[in-house]
Amino acid sequence: MNFTCEKSILQESISTAQKAVTGKSTMPVLNGILIKAYGDELILTGSDIDLSIETKIKANILEEGKIVIDAKIFGEIIRKLPNDLIHINTIDGNSIEILCQKSRFTLIHMNAEDFPDLPNINENMIFSIPQRILKNMIKGTIFATAQDDTRPILTGVLFETKNRNLNLVALDGYRLALKSEILDTDNTINAVIPGKTLNEVSKILEENDDNVNITFTPNHILFSLGATKIISRLLEGDFIKYRSIIPSEYNLKVTANRLDLLNCIERASLMAKDGNTNLVKLNIEDESMIITSNSQLGMVREESSIILQGEPLQIAFNSKYLIDVLKIIDEVEIVMEFSSGVSPCVIKNKENDNCTYLVLPVRLLNH
Amino acid sequence: MNFTCEKSILQESISTAQKAVTGKSTMPVLNGILIKAYGDELILTGSDIDLSIETKIKANILEEGKIVIDAKIFGEIIRKLPNDLIHINTIDGNSIEILCQKSRFTLIHMNAEDFPDLPNINENMIFSIPQRILKNMIKGTIFATAQDDTRPILTGVLFETKNRNLNLVALDGYRLALKSEILDTDNTINAVIPGKTLNEVSKILEENDDNVNITFTPNHILFSLGATKIISRLLEGDFIKYRSIIPSEYNLKVTANRLDLLNCIERASLMAKDGNTNLVKLNIEDESMIITSNSQLGMVREESSIILQGEPLQIAFNSKYLIDVLKIIDEVEIVMEFSSGVSPCVIKNKENDNCTYLVLPVRLLNH
Repeated sequence: MNFTCEKSILQESISTAQKAVTGKSTMPVLNGILIKAYGDELILTGSDIDLSIETKIKANILEEGKIVIDAKIFGEIIRKLPNDLIHINTIDGNSIEILCQKSRFTLIHMNAEDFPDLPNINENMIFSIPQRILKNMIKGTIFATAQDDTRPILTGVLFETKNRNLNLVALDGYRLALKSEILDTDNTINAVIPGKTLNEVSKILEENDDNVNITFTPNHILFSLGATKIISRLLEGDFIKYRSIIPSEYNLKVTANRLDLLNCIERASLMAKDGNTNLVKLNIEDESMIITSNSQLGMVREESSIILQGEPLQIAFNSKYLIDVLKIIDEVEIVMEFSSGVSPCVIKNKENDNCTYLVLPVRLLNH
Repeated sequence: MNFTCEKSILQESISTAQKAVTGKSTMPVLNGILIKAYGDELILTGSDIDLSIETKIKANILEEGKIVIDAKIFGEIIRKLPNDLIHINTIDGNSIEILCQKSRFTLIHMNAEDFPDLPNINENMIFSIPQRILKNMIKGTIFATAQDDTRPILTGVLFETKNRNLNLVALDGYRLALKSEILDTDNTINAVIPGKTLNEVSKILEENDDNVNITFTPNHILFSLGATKIISRLLEGDFIKYRSIIPSEYNLKVTANRLDLLNCIERASLMAKDGNTNLVKLNIEDESMIITSNSQLGMVREESSIILQGEPLQIAFNSKYLIDVLKIIDEVEIVMEFSSGVSPCVIKNKENDNCTYLVLPVRLLNH
């Protein structure tokens, strides 16, 4: 193998492929990046089996070939080299030489034959969506995935098509996040993608309107975006029937300024941190929501102006769950729907009907 | 106690006083900030005994008094409050109320009587130096203090006046850092200030030409800068006689481009990390310095153009010590002086004679 490539281009492609390298694999070859040099391009691949990332760049290939290089040290070396042409070639059977200006590195490489094959996915594009929108949908749901493995299916995000909508859903037993976007497809999808891999996907997606093409197989999902392909395994098992959890009716409806309410709850939660309860109480009155909390350190009372339709209500929450939702929503005004002091609260945008958040209240002893 | 104060001013003064609060004290009162309201000003004090910081701000005092408030929660609350007038007053004998717009906090306070008195220092200003210059001198030496307590005196930085110069010196047994500035004083100073407290002092010093006044007592140093006073205890014992360590003669002298050499050594050190030796070898030749390193992962050869006066030399270093020095020097060109492959290397600015760095070499088995 023998090729030259601009430092900046090589650095970016390593950074992409490296997102699939966890450095925790028991297979040494998975701590490396597979580099294949054929025709006029390099293909870099990183994988931890659950997640594989493959990215292509143009390069001047002087001799074709493939090798595996330790991802960490290779990434560090390329990043530290000057912004100039880098020349890489194999020497001595088990090493590569990296040349750039007056720098010369010799690095032991691993065998490309030991690198596991990527799942073979027939790229029948199932649907296509702008990167910016998918990135936003992931961000708007992934925080609600379960962080422990008690019920593995809850550590993932459901991708589901329904009535020409793509829905992403996450829930962890205490709260639920649902983001929807109109999608021009007749295909039926119902797959759960691990939150861990989706987090890396989200880092690669850009804030632009270029499309990402998505293909499902029974066990995998493939994201194709330009020169990069991301393959994640799916979680096994059925997702919770989440629609039955979301209340369709309510007794009272609150319209609030999102940022003002967020600030009030964040301040109130400073007191709630002591003892790790995070408990804040909401007194919903005619024109204001009174937020209180207390601990050994003292007490706090906050007040946010609201519009109330329905009867006043007292209800308590883990402040973290409310804060997570209020931070992720991007409209100026939000709507909160309540049925009773022990029923879930539904939080939505006031204008745009593209998200639904649900938070379970904390049952107080005196209720 | 009862006063009002603008949020931004109060927040900044808490942030300053808080730098002396470690949160690790066995005296609960030292987790707090002492607030004294007298006349038309508030005095906020934080202390961990070794380091005390006192800062004054103007406030509208409605009723005089003094209390101690937990620094962490008080700082968090004030930071999260809206940018507006904050009203603080004592209630119920053991609490304070914090009011701002529609927010109301009640916080338990501690007794001001339990807060230790600051050392009584007669403010005979001993010398005065622009904040920017002192900040720079601290930054240029503190990295070379010892990080373990084997010889406690080495965890501090020596402040010494000599021949109308202020010298700051730190050394840890492997390297030495000396920064000098001309100072218009006849006073003789020779005191060692703990690196830990000096680090906090450095954060408070600003990048401007306002003077900081410095007073020494047998056990303490006082930095006065505008509304803020910082008092640190001194380390006991005599500092190493460092002048005898710095060689006054040399056999060869290298003039090098600082940034180019830094980049070469940083890249070479990527290979030196494996096995934690950090070992890089320097081959000093007529017009270039060849830097090499190797480990199980492979080898690296770097080359930096230099001007050499004297005979070629081979010498090896812990790359970290060279990198620390090359990062801290701010001139384009540096001078390195060597005597032999087993003698210390002295590194200086090429132009400005205001710093001297010394690094011990690593003795190689084949020398």
